[in-house]
Amino acid sequence: MSDFDPDAAPGYPGEGKEDADELRLALEPELSDLQERLYANGRTDPENAPNLLVILQGMDTSGKGGVIRHAIGLVDPQGVKLKAFKAPTKEERSHDYLWRIRNALPERGMIGIFDRSQYEDVLVVRVDSLVPETEWSKRYDEINAFEAELAAAGTTILKCMLNVSFEEQKNRLAERLDDPSKYWKYNPGDLDSRSKWPAYMEAYEAVLQRCSTEVAPWHVIPSNRKWYRDWAVAELLREKLAGLQLQWPEAEFDVAAEKERVARA
Amino acid sequence: MSDFDPDAAPGYPGEGKEDADELRLALEPELSDLQERLYANGRTDPENAPNLLVILQGMDTSGKGGVIRHAIGLVDPQGVKLKAFKAPTKEERSHDYLWRIRNALPERGMIGIFDRSQYEDVLVVRVDSLVPETEWSKRYDEINAFEAELAAAGTTILKCMLNVSFEEQKNRLAERLDDPSKYWKYNPGDLDSRSKWPAYMEAYEAVLQRCSTEVAPWHVIPSNRKWYRDWAVAELLREKLAGLQLQWPEAEFDVAAEKERVARA
Repeated sequence: MSDFDPDAAPGYPGEGKEDADELRLALEPELSDLQERLYANGRTDPENAPNLLVILQGMDTSGKGGVIRHAIGLVDPQGVKLKAFKAPTKEERSHDYLWRIRNALPERGMIGIFDRSQYEDVLVVRVDSLVPETEWSKRYDEINAFEAELAAAGTTILKCMLNVSFEEQKNRLAERLDDPSKYWKYNPGDLDSRSKWPAYMEAYEAVLQRCSTEVAPWHVIPSNRKWYRDWAVAELLREKLAGLQLQWPEAEFDVAAEKERVARA
Repeated sequence: MSDFDPDAAPGYPGEGKEDADELRLALEPELSDLQERLYANGRTDPENAPNLLVILQGMDTSGKGGVIRHAIGLVDPQGVKLKAFKAPTKEERSHDYLWRIRNALPERGMIGIFDRSQYEDVLVVRVDSLVPETEWSKRYDEINAFEAELAAAGTTILKCMLNVSFEEQKNRLAERLDDPSKYWKYNPGDLDSRSKWPAYMEAYEAVLQRCSTEVAPWHVIPSNRKWYRDWAVAELLREKLAGLQLQWPEAEFDVAAEKERVARA
């Protein structure tokens, strides 16, 4: 993880914070158009249209929620299926760890957003030894196979690791305690994860090394600067959607005949 | 229905179409703040926090999707639970008509959006005689009782009937046939519903007369002008959320002690 600079801003086309809102919002028309094409294809060809799955991972305060609000929030909510994965419920624990993940996959034509994901099963599960190493160590290959299956079935996968520094996390936790409108975001338990920072970084490194595949590479998003983080995810979303090169679906009816019917109706 | 002018713009504070985007977007900061307060209360008090249910009804082309995109789209998608009701599935038909409605209700702290709703069971069902009159005629009281129960449990209900004229519907259907990027929105079956316009208006009148209760009144939104419709629903959403007078949740931990913990962490 030390190879990645959380303060960087690669690819950013502007000056800095001062033009970041403008540059991010400037993506909205194209994002809207691309998302509507995807949705339209899902509606007219629900068994074959592509879809998109965005996976967001990161340490507490890295801004998964901020990205959903400011980047994903640029597209029509009707085309977005959000799923936040918490600690597994009793029912979820009685199934294989990928069961709840499969259940939450987006339909064709939709953009699915995973706030946390199957990667928790090799992150917190590894760090806290929630299952034996013999078990979690097999999961990297299983996750790769799972994602390969999704990709083969037409799902584009965009995996973003929001990379915030140890120092910046401390600032953000302190901010939550300085502002009564942010108390609800503060959880005393967050300091327990923070105390295991090196073990988490090791677990993230394993994820990046073992699960960056050709069909589903990881993108490490420098996230110490929120304005860069939000712009970068919006831009990646635009690139992935544009890469689908989606056309508007053709009419499944006789356009001229329907025009006449409408004229008479 | 003839008492309601679909071209009107009651309460609109601007000049017209030219300032409508600006006025609608100007609601975003307050809407965001109010929605986040609601969400925060849901997170800290999931058994008692209020929630909001927005019910959208209207004839084809009236703009339920447009309202979701342009009005509901102003708030954080993490706080919104969307549900579009289609023709009931086989499983849904094997239950009481309110079963699927209850299943889709928003959690506390959330804004639920129903794109169509239980009212289809006294609209299309009545117009097309999908169940006998002895059955649908009982549903007005049942729906009132259902909504009263929700309101008593803390749900604020905002019911919007998007009122488009017979002439404007024709224009919008024709537009869909003039623009290949809108073909996917056109369904030849829409003309069948259009041919039953008077029966639908009668059914809507019955809904407005019998199901406008004190806890869940109907709002008829003039919808011939999309810019007014979208602003009006956003403004109603703002009013309903503001009416909850939500405070930020108090800290459930010792703030001073946690500040010290963070400083040392």
